[in-house]
Amino acid sequence: MGKDNFGDWFREILDAAKIILRTNVLTVIRRNLDETGHEEMLFPTLIPEDLIVKESTHIQSFEDEAYWITHGGKNALSVKLALRPTSETAITPMVKLWVRSHADLPLLLYQIGSIFRYETKATKPLIRIREVTTFKEAHTFHASHEAAQAQVRRANEIYMKIFSELCIPYVVSERPDWDRFAGALTTYAFDTIFPDGRCLQIGTSHDLGQNFAKAFDLTFEKKDGTRGLVWQTSYGISERAIAAVIAVHGDDRGLVLPPTIAPIQVVIIPILYRGFEDQILGACQKVSSELISAGFRVVVDNRPKITPGSKFYDWEIKGVPLRLEIGPRDLEAASFTLVRRDTAEKTTYKLDSVTRIGSILSAIEDNLRTKAWKYMDDHIHTSNALEDAKQFLDTIGGIVELPWCGTDACGRRIEAEVETRVLGTPLDGGHEVDGVCPCCGQKATHVIRVARTY
Amino acid sequence: MGKDNFGDWFREILDAAKIILRTNVLTVIRRNLDETGHEEMLFPTLIPEDLIVKESTHIQSFEDEAYWITHGGKNALSVKLALRPTSETAITPMVKLWVRSHADLPLLLYQIGSIFRYETKATKPLIRIREVTTFKEAHTFHASHEAAQAQVRRANEIYMKIFSELCIPYVVSERPDWDRFAGALTTYAFDTIFPDGRCLQIGTSHDLGQNFAKAFDLTFEKKDGTRGLVWQTSYGISERAIAAVIAVHGDDRGLVLPPTIAPIQVVIIPILYRGFEDQILGACQKVSSELISAGFRVVVDNRPKITPGSKFYDWEIKGVPLRLEIGPRDLEAASFTLVRRDTAEKTTYKLDSVTRIGSILSAIEDNLRTKAWKYMDDHIHTSNALEDAKQFLDTIGGIVELPWCGTDACGRRIEAEVETRVLGTPLDGGHEVDGVCPCCGQKATHVIRVARTY
Repeated sequence: MGKDNFGDWFREILDAAKIILRTNVLTVIRRNLDETGHEEMLFPTLIPEDLIVKESTHIQSFEDEAYWITHGGKNALSVKLALRPTSETAITPMVKLWVRSHADLPLLLYQIGSIFRYETKATKPLIRIREVTTFKEAHTFHASHEAAQAQVRRANEIYMKIFSELCIPYVVSERPDWDRFAGALTTYAFDTIFPDGRCLQIGTSHDLGQNFAKAFDLTFEKKDGTRGLVWQTSYGISERAIAAVIAVHGDDRGLVLPPTIAPIQVVIIPILYRGFEDQILGACQKVSSELISAGFRVVVDNRPKITPGSKFYDWEIKGVPLRLEIGPRDLEAASFTLVRRDTAEKTTYKLDSVTRIGSILSAIEDNLRTKAWKYMDDHIHTSNALEDAKQFLDTIGGIVELPWCGTDACGRRIEAEVETRVLGTPLDGGHEVDGVCPCCGQKATHVIRVARTY
Repeated sequence: MGKDNFGDWFREILDAAKIILRTNVLTVIRRNLDETGHEEMLFPTLIPEDLIVKESTHIQSFEDEAYWITHGGKNALSVKLALRPTSETAITPMVKLWVRSHADLPLLLYQIGSIFRYETKATKPLIRIREVTTFKEAHTFHASHEAAQAQVRRANEIYMKIFSELCIPYVVSERPDWDRFAGALTTYAFDTIFPDGRCLQIGTSHDLGQNFAKAFDLTFEKKDGTRGLVWQTSYGISERAIAAVIAVHGDDRGLVLPPTIAPIQVVIIPILYRGFEDQILGACQKVSSELISAGFRVVVDNRPKITPGSKFYDWEIKGVPLRLEIGPRDLEAASFTLVRRDTAEKTTYKLDSVTRIGSILSAIEDNLRTKAWKYMDDHIHTSNALEDAKQFLDTIGGIVELPWCGTDACGRRIEAEVETRVLGTPLDGGHEVDGVCPCCGQKATHVIRVARTY
């Protein structure tokens, strides 16, 4: 696998290894949102046209992307219904019924459900799809702009924690003016680099200001007794997080899953030998019971008539972090053999050191996270010339950081000349602005990130 | 509350006590399906017209109830898309790609997601709605009719277990020919009786025979090498299960929740007294920590400036099973006071008997289950005359069981004359058929159940 054939590999791996990761990834995201005061709800899938058109920038962006329901049975509906492309216009009118005064704020809500986009570009599993299943979208409501802005910063921190748990590296950028979420004052985005060198947006957060509050007349009574418009934010993560877990860690032999989210953490394979079948299977079951009661997710692969070699192959494809083998020699030596999926490293342990599995799984997780960040760091290039930037993206791929004067005109010219897309300006600090804008030659005021994207 | 004003009570209670029950009810249902070999998946929300029309009985029933998507953005779609009213026609074509031979069967799948019905009757929260959120629908695939029929029996047993955990009583009936699921050979349904005497269908299971397999040419290689059509079943539970939990156990003071699914099982309320505030709050926190580490869901309501009386009221509405109070007298006696939500019974315990909370919660659960079954049993009436049946439903409400000759004609006449609906014939046994059909006077061969329904 690598730069050239990543697309084929990704389709094959999705096909070969059934995707049962979703529940575990959902658990990580839900826990992080629950722990930070968000309340889970479900809002309607269908949004009447008269609501979705209320915020004018918003509908301009989404009207060509929405699916429209015109009929219920054989009856033409009096008001067309859109399948939600995002839920600001479904949630804001509900919140208007619930918020009366500053005492009701802040209000932090989220939902997990399908959103729909009528994509005209080619679709790709988990990455560009028409029904985005289990979209995790949060919507928050505040009494001041400062409070809303602070919530966007907290959202970015929550997402950093989530991606760290998933061992996915990222950069966070403030998207340029021409690529903001429709209706937002500011949009931040998390991007990661795929094995083919292209970037995937894996999460976004938006300061919505009072745009939706104005459109829906969402007001509250302030502490001083006067009324004001509510300030809003929204942020979302799609199933692209799952695509990233698969793509970032996988190798030529299949999936490689971080232990926290691996549906099976340890597979135990008996290496049977005539006359010792019962003893070997017994030893496997014993280790399995010990590990299960210690809280690990374990299976014993005791399928008859299938060679150990085929079993190794099956579980490698599925990305199980640890393979534990017990054969006749292990039986004699009261030991077992452990093979790490991430490094293929093979070590023999005494049976009584089964308690070390936990720290070995942690080591695998650390290694996956470190390796992924190293790949990311190696694919971020600093440049001050458009020609050099283009060459880096053509040959190595990843992200290029350039000095920039800050004007839309030069930003868009950089996009065109490097045949790339502007990710935005770094949010994650440590970026000294030096030199001149490669387009206009004026002193640079920002760093701008560019990449080829999905 | 009671027969006359149940509708108002139900709307008020939904409004007053935020519904955060959904997650806990979902957990019960998901666990029961996972433990019985069902695999969770997500299938598309949108079904192209050319798929949904394939099974002719099915589409006849659903075409007037489906929402139809005709446009993506401003483009008219070449094939209309239906919002799934149920998923047989979305899942069967996928399963056709996965099933090759008898070795791939049985296949037990389920999904949790929204289904949509263009209801023209008046809607009612959780009971009759246009978007049925978190519909739990299972679809299973088998090599023989016997295997499919056995799966329907297992499905009914799983549902009995689920409703038992939710403390909801039920009857199971085989629906009459004219009220089967569109495309099914047989439909079984679970019904419960609401406080207003009307019945609510809370779950259904269907033997689909080979109807969908024929329509989609879903075949498999049999053990003898020949090919045959696959046999299917489907079964579903909607959010009516939540409506039933609320309606069946609630009282004039609000919700009464079974401890297993109550979001909060014990609320601790400090009865503060000047000079003893810190000691009382400290004692409450200590009991809370002990209960939380024992695995209970507990909150301490230490809101300042709110009287204990208002706190009692707030938590009673929310249906918290146990209220634990600690005041100055308790402090002195090293005791606490416990009030049961279901019986209002008030008992004082020594602080060191906090471990008894678990068995008290079990007692509450048993009491709720027993009370609900008693109400149900008291509202099932055996009769052999239409006039008497009608009078029972007019005055007391519930279900009437009548002798029946088994013909559709008499079944429909009973429906009309008793101004009721036929639930079907009992599946749960113990029903001796005696006497003659009250319509035609022929010897009865079945018991028929009738009720006013939602």
